[in-house]
Amino acid sequence: MITYADIEAAADRLEGVAHRTPVMTSRQFNERTQSQVFFKCENFQRIGAFKFRGAYNALSQLSPEKKQKGVVTYSSGNHAQAVALSGKLLEIPTTIVMPRDAPEVKIAATRGYGAEIILYDRAEAIREKVALKLCQERGSTLIPPYNHPHVIAGQGTTAKELIEEVGNLDLLLVCCGGGGLLSGCAIATKTLLPHCRVIGVEPETGDDGTRSFHSKTLQRIENPNTIADGARTPSLGSLTFPIILEYVDDMVTVSDRALLETMFFLWERLKIVVEPTGALAATALFERIVRSPGKRIGVTISGGNIELKKLVAFLDRPISS
Amino acid sequence: MITYADIEAAADRLEGVAHRTPVMTSRQFNERTQSQVFFKCENFQRIGAFKFRGAYNALSQLSPEKKQKGVVTYSSGNHAQAVALSGKLLEIPTTIVMPRDAPEVKIAATRGYGAEIILYDRAEAIREKVALKLCQERGSTLIPPYNHPHVIAGQGTTAKELIEEVGNLDLLLVCCGGGGLLSGCAIATKTLLPHCRVIGVEPETGDDGTRSFHSKTLQRIENPNTIADGARTPSLGSLTFPIILEYVDDMVTVSDRALLETMFFLWERLKIVVEPTGALAATALFERIVRSPGKRIGVTISGGNIELKKLVAFLDRPISS
Repeated sequence: MITYADIEAAADRLEGVAHRTPVMTSRQFNERTQSQVFFKCENFQRIGAFKFRGAYNALSQLSPEKKQKGVVTYSSGNHAQAVALSGKLLEIPTTIVMPRDAPEVKIAATRGYGAEIILYDRAEAIREKVALKLCQERGSTLIPPYNHPHVIAGQGTTAKELIEEVGNLDLLLVCCGGGGLLSGCAIATKTLLPHCRVIGVEPETGDDGTRSFHSKTLQRIENPNTIADGARTPSLGSLTFPIILEYVDDMVTVSDRALLETMFFLWERLKIVVEPTGALAATALFERIVRSPGKRIGVTISGGNIELKKLVAFLDRPISS
Repeated sequence: MITYADIEAAADRLEGVAHRTPVMTSRQFNERTQSQVFFKCENFQRIGAFKFRGAYNALSQLSPEKKQKGVVTYSSGNHAQAVALSGKLLEIPTTIVMPRDAPEVKIAATRGYGAEIILYDRAEAIREKVALKLCQERGSTLIPPYNHPHVIAGQGTTAKELIEEVGNLDLLLVCCGGGGLLSGCAIATKTLLPHCRVIGVEPETGDDGTRSFHSKTLQRIENPNTIADGARTPSLGSLTFPIILEYVDDMVTVSDRALLETMFFLWERLKIVVEPTGALAATALFERIVRSPGKRIGVTISGGNIELKKLVAFLDRPISS
């Protein structure tokens, strides 16, 4: 069981290591949504996403022997860089299992933090198995991207910081992939502000979490087709799902089109670079899928790692209809 | 003569009205430039650029009678929105002279602040003349974009705030178009930190200011071809030029290619949206046109107003060679 005390302990470990990210506001966003919105900007977190919180909290708690034998994870995204940087800071060897077709820039960035990269062929192998085999061979510890109590507690510090800074909130909207950020933030929020509603937001085509939440049975969607690459996770985890059922009030979905429009609004008006997955929570409000006029609403901006080349591809799509 | 006392008085007028914009840092930018860089992020200023400081400082000092008769300016860029918003806040009628082919989004944004827009045909009229005629007809006051003592004093608060926040600097790099920001910042810097060097940065094809500085004679370039649209001003002003000669240590230029590369680095790594003109100062350092290893360097990020559609056009150009 993960409690608020675990999140407080995580906050102590992250003190002076993770950034206390800024909270931003936008008159235009408030006018459009008829509410008072506080954006918790994890795109300004180290490695450009909230993932650093959970990874560092997990790695820093390993025993000296386990630290020496290193950690392994599988990710082609922000968790890979989060583990690699945490390993560098804590002097723990890190090995990241990545698909051979992962973007060169992400492979280079992860290697840049000193991680060993093991490439695998998507058609021939399953990443979890490659990672587990490595752990067995080397005695290393697996740090999964979301289904780990220390990862969840670390991500929960995001909501803790936001509430400490802005005080009361009526609603918190959280981006949801595997549910690490959502479950951690829900525990923190329901402890600090029991009356604040918590809603998770997923992409429409990857709505496994929303369907799991409403049916109370874990649903899977393999490799959903969405621009929100951080939310292409096949399902919630065995740890995150029960927490979400207990602490989260609702789950909703947004379309890729709506996601892009909101992302571009955040870029053009707030002047911040947000990746598609990072705009999920904001989109639910911006597109009026969730309405809370007159309320104080927290919105997680979960990350800002996007290649500008990809942006061009997005802009070429028809997004205005 | 404009003195630091004018900048202090401007700061008092702007208190609680303009944003005290954040100062950002980047480990990667520091590593690349082997220095300690402090970015003063005016892309987060109201209307998305430093221009609000000068416009508000000028409009707020008008007599009640002049306020009633309104103000006029000519601009298709950030100064237009700065004047329009200042007028709205101070309840002063504003009229903006804009070319008929100005981007629809800028016309709409300026109108959104309640300004009256007068469109003119670039081929048939000169904007200064259209604006002056309006002033004569209506008894309105002209607020030019940079060549005005109150505008210059307002822009100088940018450097004042930066130095108050970070303390000593060895060098300050400032984006330069008509020289309003540069001259104001130079006065503030040389008062607060007499030993700090101040360098202005222009686009290569619009190097009128650099040539004016070195030849000590005002040079003009009509409508230079550069992506730095805020620096397409034909020349420094009769007020800004003497201040720059007196207080600025050097002027340098950067190519459009270098500007784009730096702009994209700021987007991808700092996660902030910067317009091309806003990246001028950073580019001089990033591309090693100015080198100051081991030094503490202030860099103005002057604005962040860019249409994403334009970005696509930039990305389609070959910028990596």
